[in-house]
Amino acid sequence: MLNATHDPALRSWVSSANAPGTDFPIQNLPFGVFRRRAEADCRVGVAIGNQILDVEKSSSLGLFHGLAAEAGAACSGGTLNALMALSAAHQSALRAALSAQLAADATWYRSDPQLGLRLLTPISDVEMCLPATIGDYTDFYASVYHATNVGRLFRPDNPLLPNYKYVPIGYHGRASSIVVSGTPIRRPRGQIKDPQADIPVFARSHLLDYELEVGVFVGPGNELGQPIAIDAASTHIFGLCLLNDWSARDIQSWEYQPLGPFLAKSFATTLSPWVVTLEALAPFRRAAFTRPEGDPAPLPYLFSSADQLLGGLDLTLEVALLTEQMRAEGLEPVPVSRGSFADMYWTIAQLLTHHASNGCNLRPGDLLASGTVSGPVKDSRGCLLELTTRGDEPLILPTGESRRFLEDGDEVILRGYCERAGAVRIGFGECRGIVVSALPGA
Amino acid sequence: MLNATHDPALRSWVSSANAPGTDFPIQNLPFGVFRRRAEADCRVGVAIGNQILDVEKSSSLGLFHGLAAEAGAACSGGTLNALMALSAAHQSALRAALSAQLAADATWYRSDPQLGLRLLTPISDVEMCLPATIGDYTDFYASVYHATNVGRLFRPDNPLLPNYKYVPIGYHGRASSIVVSGTPIRRPRGQIKDPQADIPVFARSHLLDYELEVGVFVGPGNELGQPIAIDAASTHIFGLCLLNDWSARDIQSWEYQPLGPFLAKSFATTLSPWVVTLEALAPFRRAAFTRPEGDPAPLPYLFSSADQLLGGLDLTLEVALLTEQMRAEGLEPVPVSRGSFADMYWTIAQLLTHHASNGCNLRPGDLLASGTVSGPVKDSRGCLLELTTRGDEPLILPTGESRRFLEDGDEVILRGYCERAGAVRIGFGECRGIVVSALPGA
Repeated sequence: MLNATHDPALRSWVSSANAPGTDFPIQNLPFGVFRRRAEADCRVGVAIGNQILDVEKSSSLGLFHGLAAEAGAACSGGTLNALMALSAAHQSALRAALSAQLAADATWYRSDPQLGLRLLTPISDVEMCLPATIGDYTDFYASVYHATNVGRLFRPDNPLLPNYKYVPIGYHGRASSIVVSGTPIRRPRGQIKDPQADIPVFARSHLLDYELEVGVFVGPGNELGQPIAIDAASTHIFGLCLLNDWSARDIQSWEYQPLGPFLAKSFATTLSPWVVTLEALAPFRRAAFTRPEGDPAPLPYLFSSADQLLGGLDLTLEVALLTEQMRAEGLEPVPVSRGSFADMYWTIAQLLTHHASNGCNLRPGDLLASGTVSGPVKDSRGCLLELTTRGDEPLILPTGESRRFLEDGDEVILRGYCERAGAVRIGFGECRGIVVSALPGA
Repeated sequence: MLNATHDPALRSWVSSANAPGTDFPIQNLPFGVFRRRAEADCRVGVAIGNQILDVEKSSSLGLFHGLAAEAGAACSGGTLNALMALSAAHQSALRAALSAQLAADATWYRSDPQLGLRLLTPISDVEMCLPATIGDYTDFYASVYHATNVGRLFRPDNPLLPNYKYVPIGYHGRASSIVVSGTPIRRPRGQIKDPQADIPVFARSHLLDYELEVGVFVGPGNELGQPIAIDAASTHIFGLCLLNDWSARDIQSWEYQPLGPFLAKSFATTLSPWVVTLEALAPFRRAAFTRPEGDPAPLPYLFSSADQLLGGLDLTLEVALLTEQMRAEGLEPVPVSRGSFADMYWTIAQLLTHHASNGCNLRPGDLLASGTVSGPVKDSRGCLLELTTRGDEPLILPTGESRRFLEDGDEVILRGYCERAGAVRIGFGECRGIVVSALPGA
């Protein structure tokens, strides 16, 4: 899958894309949907340094040819769905064309720099939108560390259920309440039953949590009744983003039996606006994906010698917190955890193939999420439930504040990036959300 | 909510609508989306006797006025979503206008019967489509009899979990695989673990079941973060239909812990094509909705003196089976169960208000389902799992065949209707699906 955009020496005429540490060098080119302030329409773009290149306008100017032109023409509806529906070859061709368009030696830019500049908008001048119209959203549970840590809180002697190492556990989530990074998150109200109480009350959640996850956008879909073979899984994946699966733990513990989480999750899910393609991530795929000694092999439909690498991705994921008091004191967000997506038990190819294995049809723009990304050590735990052991070991913040769960005014910031010596950093940008107080009670 | 269409003496110039026993008298007027054979476009219509009235064409001919004209104009997109998004007053006005248009004494029809006839198409000449683009689909568990029967199979001493009488239990379902009545249902493959086996296998499901449910289409939605008060719930409900929540019990029992049903359900859900409005059902709402002696009262956010009636609906629901052998012998479908929607523990107003109580936004065209409708007696059990006690007590069919679960070639037919002395019968039509064999194994 390597193409020109992976050349680590490649530079762009957009100078901010060449700055060390940028999330968006020319080797990345993540897709997103943006709206210029004071404009009504959403437009498809790619991030380059601190700028957005308008893909729709580039397409209408005839800058693309062949498959790339077909792919560019699919970028006109204000969402990425039509592009996602095209073949991986189309998507790859458009990415290569964008790379050529943005390369420092692009002849068209040299001949008319003003045109090039007119295709750019500073990221700071736009409002980002959801990348796609999300038909269905599915949340998995692919970190064995997370499953074990959470299981231990409820079943100390038997934390991991017997199906875990065979079934990529997942459940359907709520698509309507997925919001883009920066949208305020209203603390939910719901039924809560204190362990000492006889009956529940309807009240504001006081055990509000985040969950650090990776989102996966489906590219070309499958027909109802037709599974997706594991070797074909990567051709059905458009790209990855960051996802915060906000969770009200007190609502969750009372409602979740026997059918799983529902209102504890459906009040909001936050998505980062930039979708990083598998091609951009290719240099950070691990050479092999192996299971711990003694664990069962995946069943054949989930095993591929070709594509098993897809989850073994050296993607570093971080969570930072910024409280109201920290903002008042002018402090920066404080990191509270750091983990790696390489620690997941199931690859994203396995999640996708399992999802379609019963014939369930996935559609372009459907969203899968990994489940909370937690690793083997304590500071790699991807939610407060795990980090604070259900509140028993509060975090102490630089202001002297402590946190068992989220307070009103707290902002949660997820970040993700791939870094390695000899490779250009590929960043995901940020996924942010600030908690606002619950509606007053009835 | 009573309006002209409830006059039990009202007759239509469409003679089949006046036949005793029709599902679609002029008092019903359910909405649906149809396509004439050899036409590509889907169109909005209402069922009247054995005909469909083309609502889009009626609207374009200027037959509606005021709010009804606005509602008629919303019927042009080939789905009901735009009509569902309008106010209950709009929907009611359109229904009243359609009733006047179809009444035996309609002056416009008397002056130009040919025009009236050109607006009709025989139901037998069309293909029905899904009524709406379904954004999110949520499945509830609102029958205490079903929850108790199923719970007893797994926990004989403690069948009903402690949250059941407080929380309208539900979970997110899969929207992409909802299909309209008549679509063949491919038997899924999936992970199945025999209780005696050490490890699971990936194989065809051999415990395939149906679930008899009622579907509820959301009308006007709510904004994210803004709950829906119980007294306002009915104004957010467009109408009801029949729903078959196909379930692979062997996949379900292995996968469902801890996050609930997933691939056991997501391979297909069948919906009946006609959406019956709350106005048409109004004569069949019970005068009071009461809980059994000793049960807790609903929490205040789920209690309404005005709207608590909404689930106490005298809607009779039936399941019939037709096997391949029965078809070969020319037999009619055999009824296997009959229940009443009045036996549900939670009303549809309570389901809707609970769903939005955490601020989750419901959108026009979103679908809620009741969960399996089972009653207190054995022949009112709405799925084979309950009817055959997980296969221990097979059904014996007129051919001498027995059924523990569904075999390939079996057709499941759901029917629903409201009947009472002094009232005109309001029918739902049918929800049908035939099981076809699984794809060959890998």
